[in-house]
Amino acid sequence: MAALDAALTHVRSHHDAYLEQLTTLLAIPSVSTLSEHRPDILRTAEWLRDALNCVGMTRAELMPTPLHPMVYAEWLGAPGKPTVLVYGHYDVQPADPLDEWDSPPFEPTVRGDCLYARGVSDMKGQIFAQIKAVEALALQGKLPVNLKYLLEGEEEIGSPSLDAFIEAHRDLLACDFVLNCDSGILAPDLPSLVYALRGLAYFELEVRGPGKDLHSGLFGGSVHNPAQVLCELVAGMHDADGRVTLPGFYDAVVPLDDEERRQIARWPMTDDAWRAMTGAPRLWGEAGYTTLERVGGRPTLEVNGLVSGFIGEGAKTVLPARALAKLSCRLVPEQDPAAIKSMLEHYLAENTPNTVTWRLRELSHGPGALMDRHAAPVRAAAKALKDVFGMEPVFRREGGSIPVVGVLQEKLGVESVLLGFGLPDDSIHGPNEKQHLPTLFKGIETYVRFLAGFQA
Amino acid sequence: MAALDAALTHVRSHHDAYLEQLTTLLAIPSVSTLSEHRPDILRTAEWLRDALNCVGMTRAELMPTPLHPMVYAEWLGAPGKPTVLVYGHYDVQPADPLDEWDSPPFEPTVRGDCLYARGVSDMKGQIFAQIKAVEALALQGKLPVNLKYLLEGEEEIGSPSLDAFIEAHRDLLACDFVLNCDSGILAPDLPSLVYALRGLAYFELEVRGPGKDLHSGLFGGSVHNPAQVLCELVAGMHDADGRVTLPGFYDAVVPLDDEERRQIARWPMTDDAWRAMTGAPRLWGEAGYTTLERVGGRPTLEVNGLVSGFIGEGAKTVLPARALAKLSCRLVPEQDPAAIKSMLEHYLAENTPNTVTWRLRELSHGPGALMDRHAAPVRAAAKALKDVFGMEPVFRREGGSIPVVGVLQEKLGVESVLLGFGLPDDSIHGPNEKQHLPTLFKGIETYVRFLAGFQA
Repeated sequence: MAALDAALTHVRSHHDAYLEQLTTLLAIPSVSTLSEHRPDILRTAEWLRDALNCVGMTRAELMPTPLHPMVYAEWLGAPGKPTVLVYGHYDVQPADPLDEWDSPPFEPTVRGDCLYARGVSDMKGQIFAQIKAVEALALQGKLPVNLKYLLEGEEEIGSPSLDAFIEAHRDLLACDFVLNCDSGILAPDLPSLVYALRGLAYFELEVRGPGKDLHSGLFGGSVHNPAQVLCELVAGMHDADGRVTLPGFYDAVVPLDDEERRQIARWPMTDDAWRAMTGAPRLWGEAGYTTLERVGGRPTLEVNGLVSGFIGEGAKTVLPARALAKLSCRLVPEQDPAAIKSMLEHYLAENTPNTVTWRLRELSHGPGALMDRHAAPVRAAAKALKDVFGMEPVFRREGGSIPVVGVLQEKLGVESVLLGFGLPDDSIHGPNEKQHLPTLFKGIETYVRFLAGFQA
Repeated sequence: MAALDAALTHVRSHHDAYLEQLTTLLAIPSVSTLSEHRPDILRTAEWLRDALNCVGMTRAELMPTPLHPMVYAEWLGAPGKPTVLVYGHYDVQPADPLDEWDSPPFEPTVRGDCLYARGVSDMKGQIFAQIKAVEALALQGKLPVNLKYLLEGEEEIGSPSLDAFIEAHRDLLACDFVLNCDSGILAPDLPSLVYALRGLAYFELEVRGPGKDLHSGLFGGSVHNPAQVLCELVAGMHDADGRVTLPGFYDAVVPLDDEERRQIARWPMTDDAWRAMTGAPRLWGEAGYTTLERVGGRPTLEVNGLVSGFIGEGAKTVLPARALAKLSCRLVPEQDPAAIKSMLEHYLAENTPNTVTWRLRELSHGPGALMDRHAAPVRAAAKALKDVFGMEPVFRREGGSIPVVGVLQEKLGVESVLLGFGLPDDSIHGPNEKQHLPTLFKGIETYVRFLAGFQA
């Protein structure tokens, strides 16, 4: 226990240094969606490779993929101990709309207890915390477990290279379980562990009408406006009860049972507090479920983007040639993204008038995941959270999607522990993304305790 | 008649010079919507002022407005003859989408019989033709009529300064009738005169939901997506028969009578040819009317633009904070744009759920116009067209809007003759805008004959 105590003492005395180091990582705009940021992606991967070298990994390198490199690292000096594969992603979402940020997204800024920057919560802060925990333990002598790292640069674009990479490197990545840091807890005083994730099916729908943009005066009234048709198609995808209308959409969904609804209700989050967090005038959703049930346990269909015609300042009297919507479904674990695509295609084929044409493109997909709450690594994570935060974590379903959990289950046959320290109001993917620093520092301690727990 | 013949001979021998001069005018990107083009607006106004000086105007100057200057010019050396106020606009629509142009919009390019450039048909080509007609007549001696010019730089943004300018300069602009060159004919072999114009009411509708863009996984299913709500609102604005559903929308519309429907049917334009011109898979519109009746004689509601959330390449799982639509109605002459705004506000108040907020902003408006087909200047224009094109022009309704016609009627008590030489397939407001050059050169001859007709 002396080593554990010393590691924790080290962590507590280095908060300022951590903040400074994390700032340099966050300043690199590793936006994977935009091709102009490829050099930044590379610099970020190199930063992490070097950091992993510094904390004693015996191998740390960039491994190529068709797009952005994987950072792989390992230390295997504890024979007989479990091998933990740490998963994370070093890419971030685009920062737009830029004008809604109170400080520039890639100039990390502390305000109050929080650090504001794109990617600080999702998830450079989490990777950083995990590496600093390993550093604190390494400084006390030998690490308590074998470690491997797989850090990808394509998570925010749907991980196009991940499946093939894992498939091609099964031996290299072999492990006892995965520590996935792409997660969070419910509140600074409410630790939690996620045992279910929603899947994702993301599409781009294009409706085309005239061969080119037309003058709305000369041609208006004689051809079907593709923006109007797109609106009609999107409008038809929900009914008045907030349910998705695609035929068969709910067929595979397993209803939440009473025990699960009780677990979800343990989170002391009121609708008022949730509404305040979103800034929306009122909450909304599928009839028959509480807000937290909707977010964790029910599938959705969202419009992520719309564009057609003239969108500049002022007026342009154009009848647009085409209209485009980005649409995505969050799926419960039982739903199959491929089946959702078929349902959407079927809906479009049935409901699109022949005055326009349509094209549906799948941009990314991944199944949801359900994890065993009683597996040993999950129990170890629960204990570490309890020791640091002073209470039993809430077990909960998560509304977001982490496809890699399902992929690692399938390809390597291993379960993941989701342990990270974001908070629900971190504004990830939006402007003013933040990380609550006291929670992040407690997170480092939690990672220390979690790994040290395998010492015995 | 010797002067007329000499003027026509002059025109016929200067086609190449005209093309060269017009090219320099078109190369200036006088886009009034975009503030970065203010210097180009000014250069264009100066170009026209100088051209009007060169053809013998005794006064030609820029007159300031709160935004873009008016070009005013006059020659009043024919006492006893009518005074004609030539109206035109020297601003142009934005050129986007730029990647759909086959040659750059501000590098005028001849392909076949046509000149391609933004603004060549709408309407720098028409102003140019009118000035060249005056030049040809002036070279033969005294002009047959008194001339005034009012060329504005704000037509494509709804002429915000025009009403007040006309109101403040009634004496300066006093005239017997207006020659409005912002028009066209039906085909190179089918001259026509427009006697009715549609009005316009252009709006921007914004729907706001969450206070900022949210992560669609963490929050999806708990707040109403404003892009979805916008789509539902827009979708509700038309019924299955293509009619606008806003209560009261058709109340003021005077039905087309049989004589008018017969006039409209004189244009030998088939649905197939119209469809080919638009490039749409099929035609569409309000049930119970022919295509040409819809375009000329029926009001419409169009989506001119849509934007919400993430519209870049790839996928971003955002639940957008807001969604925006540009919407405009083309109105028949009896409809009042202010009443349309009230109807739209009423519809939005009745149909927007309280999970979001909305805001409607009027960007521009103008009433339609109905003109007397038997007035002397209109008959003179008809004779000039017949003399040049060899057949009686078709009298027709126009789908576009020229609000200045109504404004001049109201403020100066004068009628307008719409005489211009664009063609329906010129792609004005869209990519690859063009002007058919043989028609433009005939246009110069028509303007010569029209003005010379007042000699007697």
